[in-house]
Amino acid sequence: MVKADTMEPSPFDQPYRGGFVGKEHRFALTVFFEDTDTAGIVYHANYLRFFERARSDMLRAAGIDQRAAIDAGIGAYAVSEMDIKWRRPAKLDDDLIVVSRVTDVRNASCSIHQRVMRGNQILAEATVTAALLTPEGRPRRQPAEWIERFRAIEQKGN
Amino acid sequence: MVKADTMEPSPFDQPYRGGFVGKEHRFALTVFFEDTDTAGIVYHANYLRFFERARSDMLRAAGIDQRAAIDAGIGAYAVSEMDIKWRRPAKLDDDLIVVSRVTDVRNASCSIHQRVMRGNQILAEATVTAALLTPEGRPRRQPAEWIERFRAIEQKGN
Amino acid sequence: MVKADTMEPSPFDQPYRGGFVGKEHRFALTVFFEDTDTAGIVYHANYLRFFERARSDMLRAAGIDQRAAIDAGIGAYAVSEMDIKWRRPAKLDDDLIVVSRVTDVRNASCSIHQRVMRGNQILAEATVTAALLTPEGRPRRQPAEWIERFRAIEQKGN
Amino acid sequence: MVKADTMEPSPFDQPYRGGFVGKEHRFALTVFFEDTDTAGIVYHANYLRFFERARSDMLRAAGIDQRAAIDAGIGAYAVSEMDIKWRRPAKLDDDLIVVSRVTDVRNASCSIHQRVMRGNQILAEATVTAALLTPEGRPRRQPAEWIERFRAIEQKGN
Repeated sequence: MVKADTMEPSPFDQPYRGGFVGKEHRFALTVFFEDTDTAGIVYHANYLRFFERARSDMLRAAGIDQRAAIDAGIGAYAVSEMDIKWRRPAKLDDDLIVVSRVTDVRNASCSIHQRVMRGNQILAEATVTAALLTPEGRPRRQPAEWIERFRAIEQKGN
Repeated sequence: MVKADTMEPSPFDQPYRGGFVGKEHRFALTVFFEDTDTAGIVYHANYLRFFERARSDMLRAAGIDQRAAIDAGIGAYAVSEMDIKWRRPAKLDDDLIVVSRVTDVRNASCSIHQRVMRGNQILAEATVTAALLTPEGRPRRQPAEWIERFRAIEQKGN
Repeated sequence: MVKADTMEPSPFDQPYRGGFVGKEHRFALTVFFEDTDTAGIVYHANYLRFFERARSDMLRAAGIDQRAAIDAGIGAYAVSEMDIKWRRPAKLDDDLIVVSRVTDVRNASCSIHQRVMRGNQILAEATVTAALLTPEGRPRRQPAEWIERFRAIEQKGN
Repeated sequence: MVKADTMEPSPFDQPYRGGFVGKEHRFALTVFFEDTDTAGIVYHANYLRFFERARSDMLRAAGIDQRAAIDAGIGAYAVSEMDIKWRRPAKLDDDLIVVSRVTDVRNASCSIHQRVMRGNQILAEATVTAALLTPEGRPRRQPAEWIERFRAIEQKGN
């Protein structure tokens, strides 16, 4: 039996959501111990986790439900290519903003430029290509509605 | 040279912060791909990351600056003991709340009860003991001011 | 098209496998940057990854194929309970051995005692309960053959 | 007090070490639950953990002691640039080999080509630049002895 427990609603109960500022999507986060390594900085691979959180939040903001797509057997996006530069290290407790911009939308994949900012400093930036794969791992055409949504983002004004 | 870039402020730029509701601290988060595993659920060890984010946010809310403590050579908290029950799995895109309550404050360590909620369901709960260690790894007395802050939390009304 | 490339076999091509010494299973590993945090030690949650690698290797050594079980719709083990003590920190480049011993086998779950050793020092130890869940997340009886295999391990001589 | 316990030596106590085959370094590993995500494949960012394990093992094989370098205040390598292609997904229990080759050695940084193989299939490949940073995060010249060691690797025959 799963224990239940009724909590009074509070102002802290809504998880963070990012959103669009013109054609750029912003996603803010804080660096925790789990993100750092013994060199005293954020472990380089963890920037890819930050980038992915931002892309997932962007898909959500664009009305694309990744979990429903997996459950319905449509599949999931897989990153097929990434070109990253790390320019300056982030540290424990730093507040960061991941800024993402859709740069190209094709039938089966999208390109996105992403950067991690601390204030006005660029800490890392990446060009990412994500392809939609079937549950069997084969590339597939993105649903027409999703392509439209990406195109709508791409063409937003600043 | 580090590239810079001036961004207009936006409503999305402030990372999430949790806070106290009576003597309980709340910290909300969303499950991302990085948290899940091939069984289709959140990988069990990742609940410990969620618990740690919540404790770090609670320390911050209590006015304790962990990074300054490391930089000043005071040391860092290390988890010395944890008794966890996983009751029900979390999945991709779930919104969760980690609820934390300080249950005991000693000279060199604290005990905290934490639970992960999805709505009114308890998904996991843990009793955690964290001890303050010097940079050399030896247990040390917590600064008197920190002990006072924990005691103040412990004695808050509901 | 996926690129292929023919490599000459070498003595380095076989990944590590642990194995049983009497009724205890041993699994050796080295600490990498990914395992550490800014306090200069292995991040506490990562010991759970080490414990899980050791349990998975023990299942393999016992002839239980977890991936085939997932693919066949049988399900996967989920950790339902864990009581852990961290006694002494591990650091970058440390060579560790995870020692695991099955302590109880029930219809739908097993209990396992695990400890992380560095030489003759116990760095962490845990009592773990793992339950077999269906793909829908419900507890299910373990296949009779698996129960027999666990019982055979439990009853091995030292 | 830290508990101790005397273990008889066994054939399983030595962690895996990779090594050089001509000028290529090989590092074999097995995919565990921690590496996968809810799409049923290895989470893309975790390939960077595999690449890093292989580079660290290569440095060790080349006689460079990263932990001693951190402890002595020399600093640590930080990845400054990475261009990765993911070609085909890895899954739970797959046995993989990371093949690494030093392609350029400069005063303050190295370039390395790395690929993840499953049998003769390339699953992922990357061009990586790693720069040596002081503990304060500034680029610094690599010790002359290290440069020589990298050059010796670069010039090995096949």
